[in-house]
Amino acid sequence: VASNVLAELFTSMAHMQRALEAERDIAEEIRQYIRAQEEKLKNLERIASEIDQHSAKALENPEYYLANPVDAYLFVKYFTLDWDRDIDPVLKNNTGNLDDLGKKIELHRQDLPTYEDLTGTVNALLRLQDTYKLDTTSIARGDLGGSSSSQLSAEECFEIGRQSYKNEDFYHTVMWMQEALDRNFIETNQTISRSLILDYLTFSTYKQGNILHALVLTKELLLLEPDHSRAQSNKRYYEKLLAEEEQVNRHGDDG
Amino acid sequence: VASNVLAELFTSMAHMQRALEAERDIAEEIRQYIRAQEEKLKNLERIASEIDQHSAKALENPEYYLANPVDAYLFVKYFTLDWDRDIDPVLKNNTGNLDDLGKKIELHRQDLPTYEDLTGTVNALLRLQDTYKLDTTSIARGDLGGSSSSQLSAEECFEIGRQSYKNEDFYHTVMWMQEALDRNFIETNQTISRSLILDYLTFSTYKQGNILHALVLTKELLLLEPDHSRAQSNKRYYEKLLAEEEQVNRHGDDG
Repeated sequence: VASNVLAELFTSMAHMQRALEAERDIAEEIRQYIRAQEEKLKNLERIASEIDQHSAKALENPEYYLANPVDAYLFVKYFTLDWDRDIDPVLKNNTGNLDDLGKKIELHRQDLPTYEDLTGTVNALLRLQDTYKLDTTSIARGDLGGSSSSQLSAEECFEIGRQSYKNEDFYHTVMWMQEALDRNFIETNQTISRSLILDYLTFSTYKQGNILHALVLTKELLLLEPDHSRAQSNKRYYEKLLAEEEQVNRHGDDG
Repeated sequence: VASNVLAELFTSMAHMQRALEAERDIAEEIRQYIRAQEEKLKNLERIASEIDQHSAKALENPEYYLANPVDAYLFVKYFTLDWDRDIDPVLKNNTGNLDDLGKKIELHRQDLPTYEDLTGTVNALLRLQDTYKLDTTSIARGDLGGSSSSQLSAEECFEIGRQSYKNEDFYHTVMWMQEALDRNFIETNQTISRSLILDYLTFSTYKQGNILHALVLTKELLLLEPDHSRAQSNKRYYEKLLAEEEQVNRHGDDG
C-alpha cells in the first residue's frame, strides 16, 4: 500500500486520538444526562406515589372527610396549601419547560377543591367551635365533643389561625396560634417555624388589646430572631404604649 | 356534631368524588409522563452504548484505522454521514428543546472528523485504486492487493460513488455505484435502496457516453419506481438520443 498516501493519513494520528477521546466524552455526556433525568423521574415517581396513596385512602371512605369539619378542612388543605407547597414545585423542577404535563395537570386541577373551599372549611370549623363552645386543644386532639376526628399538627393549627387572621378575626387567631405554639413546643419534627407562629400571635394579641402579653411574645420572638426589624420596632411600640398606660394610671391615683 | 354544618358539606359529596377522581387522574398523568421519559432514556442509553462500543474498538487499535484508506474512510464516515443519520436524530428526539446536552455534544464534535476529512479519505482511496489499478470488487471485498482491510457494504460503496459524483468524477462513480448495485443484489438486510443507486448510476453512465446502458438502467429504475418522473423523462431523452444516433449511422451507411 502506497506509503505516500499513508504518510498523509499518519500525520493525523494526533487528530485521530483527539477524535476518539471526543467520542468517549460524548458517550459520557449522554450518560450524565441520562442519570440526571433518572433523578428527576425518581422525584416524580415519589410524588405520584404520594398522590396515589392519598387518593386510595380517601376513596376507601370518602364520607369520612365530610363527616366532620376538621377532616373536611384537612381534605381541602391538601389540595390547596399542601399541593402548592409540596407537589407543584416537584413537578416544575423535574419536568421540561415545554412539556405538556403541567398543562394536563392544570386541567385536572379544575376539579379539585379551591382556596375558596379552604376558607369555607375553616369558617365551618370555627362556627362549630363557637356553636358548641369547643375547646381549641380538644379539637386539635381530635375530640369534637361526641365524635372524633383526625388530630392536628402545629402547622395545621397555624393555617386555621392564619385563615382567621386574613378574615381579621383576631379572636380565633389568638386561640389557634396559641394551640399551634403549644404543639410546636412538643413536636419532634417541626411542621412550622415557631417564630412564624409568634409573629401572627403577637399581632393578634395586640389587636385583642393585651399589650403586655404582646410584649412578652415579641421578646420571645426576638430571642429566636434578634434581627427581626419589625419585631424590634413593635417591642419599642408596645413598651411605649405600656409606659403611657402606666402614666395614665399614676395620674389617676394622684387624682 | 351540627347537622346543619354537615348538610352544607354533604351537598358537595359529588364534588368530592370528582376531586378524588381528578386526583387519581393526576397521578396517572404523572406516571404516563414518567413512562414516556423512560422510553426516551432507553433510546439515549442505546446510542451511548453504540458510541462506547465504537470508541472502545477504535481505541484498542487506533493505527488500524490509518493503516489503510478503506478503514480511514469508514472511520471518518462514522463521524459524519452515519452520525448525522443515526445518532443526531436520536439525540434530538429524546432530549428536551432547552436541554444543554445538544450544546455540550456540539462542543465535543469540534474535535471529530469533518465532511472535509470525508472527501479527503475518499479521494485518497480513489487515488490508491488508480495508482495500483485495483479492482473495485477486490477493494470492496477487503483485498487491497497485498494487505487487507474491512469489507464494504452496498451503502458504503454507494457513498464512495456519491462522493465521486459530487466531484463530477463520473468515471469512479460508475465503478462504485456498480459495485453498490451488485452488493445490494445479494444483501439480505438492505443497507441502501436499489433505486437510489440506480438513479446515480444511470446519470453517470450517460455522462460517460454509454446511452444504451443508461437506458437499460433507467428501465430497471422505472420497474422499481414507475412514478419516478425524472426517470420517465430521462427514458424518453435517451430513446431520442439513441434514435438520432441510429439516424446518423444509417445516413453514414448510405454515403
